[in-house]
Amino acid sequence: MSLMTRCIAEFMGTFWLVLGGCGSAVLAAAYTADATKISDTTSFPLGIGLVGVSLAFGLTVLTMAYSFGHISGGHFNPAVSFGLFVAKRIRGGSTLAGYIAAQCLGAIAAAGVLFVIASGKAGFALTGSNPLATNGYGVHSPDGYSLLSALIIEVVMTFFFLMIILGSTDRRAPQALAPLSIGFALTLIHLISIPVTNTSVNPARSLGPALFVGGDVLGQVWLFWLAPIAGAVLAGLVYNAVFSEVVQETERVREPV
Amino acid sequence: MSLMTRCIAEFMGTFWLVLGGCGSAVLAAAYTADATKISDTTSFPLGIGLVGVSLAFGLTVLTMAYSFGHISGGHFNPAVSFGLFVAKRIRGGSTLAGYIAAQCLGAIAAAGVLFVIASGKAGFALTGSNPLATNGYGVHSPDGYSLLSALIIEVVMTFFFLMIILGSTDRRAPQALAPLSIGFALTLIHLISIPVTNTSVNPARSLGPALFVGGDVLGQVWLFWLAPIAGAVLAGLVYNAVFSEVVQETERVREPV
Amino acid sequence: MSLMTRCIAEFMGTFWLVLGGCGSAVLAAAYTADATKISDTTSFPLGIGLVGVSLAFGLTVLTMAYSFGHISGGHFNPAVSFGLFVAKRIRGGSTLAGYIAAQCLGAIAAAGVLFVIASGKAGFALTGSNPLATNGYGVHSPDGYSLLSALIIEVVMTFFFLMIILGSTDRRAPQALAPLSIGFALTLIHLISIPVTNTSVNPARSLGPALFVGGDVLGQVWLFWLAPIAGAVLAGLVYNAVFSEVVQETERVREPV
Amino acid sequence: MSLMTRCIAEFMGTFWLVLGGCGSAVLAAAYTADATKISDTTSFPLGIGLVGVSLAFGLTVLTMAYSFGHISGGHFNPAVSFGLFVAKRIRGGSTLAGYIAAQCLGAIAAAGVLFVIASGKAGFALTGSNPLATNGYGVHSPDGYSLLSALIIEVVMTFFFLMIILGSTDRRAPQALAPLSIGFALTLIHLISIPVTNTSVNPARSLGPALFVGGDVLGQVWLFWLAPIAGAVLAGLVYNAVFSEVVQETERVREPV
Repeated sequence: MSLMTRCIAEFMGTFWLVLGGCGSAVLAAAYTADATKISDTTSFPLGIGLVGVSLAFGLTVLTMAYSFGHISGGHFNPAVSFGLFVAKRIRGGSTLAGYIAAQCLGAIAAAGVLFVIASGKAGFALTGSNPLATNGYGVHSPDGYSLLSALIIEVVMTFFFLMIILGSTDRRAPQALAPLSIGFALTLIHLISIPVTNTSVNPARSLGPALFVGGDVLGQVWLFWLAPIAGAVLAGLVYNAVFSEVVQETERVREPV
Repeated sequence: MSLMTRCIAEFMGTFWLVLGGCGSAVLAAAYTADATKISDTTSFPLGIGLVGVSLAFGLTVLTMAYSFGHISGGHFNPAVSFGLFVAKRIRGGSTLAGYIAAQCLGAIAAAGVLFVIASGKAGFALTGSNPLATNGYGVHSPDGYSLLSALIIEVVMTFFFLMIILGSTDRRAPQALAPLSIGFALTLIHLISIPVTNTSVNPARSLGPALFVGGDVLGQVWLFWLAPIAGAVLAGLVYNAVFSEVVQETERVREPV
Repeated sequence: MSLMTRCIAEFMGTFWLVLGGCGSAVLAAAYTADATKISDTTSFPLGIGLVGVSLAFGLTVLTMAYSFGHISGGHFNPAVSFGLFVAKRIRGGSTLAGYIAAQCLGAIAAAGVLFVIASGKAGFALTGSNPLATNGYGVHSPDGYSLLSALIIEVVMTFFFLMIILGSTDRRAPQALAPLSIGFALTLIHLISIPVTNTSVNPARSLGPALFVGGDVLGQVWLFWLAPIAGAVLAGLVYNAVFSEVVQETERVREPV
Repeated sequence: MSLMTRCIAEFMGTFWLVLGGCGSAVLAAAYTADATKISDTTSFPLGIGLVGVSLAFGLTVLTMAYSFGHISGGHFNPAVSFGLFVAKRIRGGSTLAGYIAAQCLGAIAAAGVLFVIASGKAGFALTGSNPLATNGYGVHSPDGYSLLSALIIEVVMTFFFLMIILGSTDRRAPQALAPLSIGFALTLIHLISIPVTNTSVNPARSLGPALFVGGDVLGQVWLFWLAPIAGAVLAGLVYNAVFSEVVQETERVREPV
């Protein structure tokens, strides 16, 4: 596979992650059936809530890792690419740079498509605390958590996300199930942390929607590059130091699922 | 397997998809427990909501793909058959025509059985915005989205649905997990898009219930043939152009899933 | 494995199915957090609802099929045993009779344990429409569906449940995933049909709780023996007539799952 | 793998279990979107409820068992370690003691991190019936269940949890799917029993949060050591007595997933 082909897979996968994850939050999370539209009920909270959004984010990765894992390795996330680079699962700065560029472009394109679709409902506007499902802390934390809480949870969640990616794709593990483990890990991470930061653990996912919202929402994006990449790099170092087979560190060059 | 046997599998699978997916929406989505029927609560929103309906649609495909995938390939959807035809995963116009006919008959039969079951509750009527879980846009969009939003989301969702089908059944992927990936992809698509169009991505699924409702609901079905098939055909072309191995395009004839 | 060992597995599996499925419905479905018990909210519908109960029923079968499938085949349901007998997947009336006896005993024991646990909450009583999660139609249908609707849905759901069991355990399918397919099939069936009959598709599951409730609830159990077994037998005949390989009908004797 | 390396895996896995499971309960279960923060709705129960918390607990084990199962066996729970010891799946008291110490330390560390994160929201306090998602009975049972109900359900749930672990990792079962079966078993157990005890089945998970809450909550922790370990030991004895192959008891020494 050429680097260009692999970058197209990363573009598409990250597009799907942001469209699916943020799209489910924007379009479906708080949907309430109107009593005039459903015949046998009064106004009813049919929306998917945080459980549905968590499932959606995880399933974007599960489906794309099964679809494109054999092409690009299925990162769809600059923090994942950094972590795998540090853990020596990918080689070469050109792959790292190409992947991250493709991921950011995919996230921005998806946020744009989502913005167009969401605009097709009367009254849509980029208002509220987290428009277009952007991430944030303090006044832009969905439930009002501080910068410190946001920092800790993003570092810890991304650290464990990478431990799961590194462990589940280890050749001693049943690798065919790795996309399931990794996708459900992202679901789990959202189940825990949406109220704190709206959950990033993915710098590209934070960047895309924030570019369309701008203002102080965009001004908070730095945290969602810093914290996930720090957690991911730490995980790459710890995994190899503690759990790698000796032979693996020098021998292994193939890409993970 | 004879074409007739494979068409029976497609009939049954699409019957199950429509009965299960639309049935869960009609029978269970907005169920509210009556305080007089449950001993220890007042009126309580026990219904499955959009999360449950999304799970139901996905699980119909997951279960049927594991059950009949080795018989017919497990399409259950004319857009999928078109996409796989364009991607040269199925050969011959007779298979394509037979599958689509079987899928439409299965969807119509399921809508009929669902109508009979739903009629067994006092007060049931084909009223409201989306009776029998039909698809729609504008006044028949569950949350009031425009025709343009409906068109975009159906094209994009079906495009990615086919990318996932093509990627997960690629011989370089762990094919035994493909039904899981594809079924959960349909769950994900519903988590995102039910409020916009009630989610089609499947012309047969749109046709069945609409035939029993008729009127302007039936008059909107054209969009749910046009958009999903367009998205699927596009995906078939893109996947083969970008991701196929050279040898695969001429050599591969076996069926996916 | 001796017949006795296999019957113990069937006893335990059906015990788990009834304790887990009916237990989740009785203990957790309509749970509402008291404002005095949670610090930061007013009364909140935290209960698992029909989505949670559907998941619970399916996961009992998924977990037990992975645990005991290699011991007894993992039926946990007299209708399944009948269907597999008709489809010639199990041989001998003694296995059929032993399995059904073990399944009924397991269901009754689980209903008893559930009754004891539920009684540990002040105010518990066997009142309401479906106490101990019993099945019913008419006045005992959770949402008031007629006998005809109940009959149709139980026959159709069990028919497809058996088609999925027979297809997913077919040697041409990836059999290691069959417990996942079959377990999620039961989740799907509950997502569709709880409001109609509280979902049986399993005569033992209907018998156990009804014995503790008695009265006209017990008087409705006949339907939940008749309909599931009819649907299962029909599926066994159809699968072998339409989808079996010729050689398979005479050769295959090993147990599914 | 050295015992130290395996203990680090047990520490991390139990940390993740408590942070993810208890964290989802504390941070996300009862989250209600403020009408002033979401643009198109009034106050809406977006929180993940007991379904989300149940999913979260199960997914911590699913993800960690796929990640570290090949390193430590993936216990993350003193009751599991006891049960596997009795079933002769692990050998040696030093492994048992080391694992349990690592699990308790991981649970305590995770409760501490969760406490710091949760404190970042104005008004957070360790009040209410089950602060930091502690376990309890009587006045500390979420729905007011008695000590007897709590005892029975913890013994029975842990008994079946261990039966599923022992069965799914049996060499006659498809072992690559065992982490899925075991993880979803924990989800199922939570779907059933959160209202009764807030669900333990894991002494370390009970200890960690209780140490930070103290008082009579800490005084109830004894039950959540006694009952889970009793259920687990019983399961280890029953499984080997009833379901083991004769050869297996003397021959098998490798660790389960």
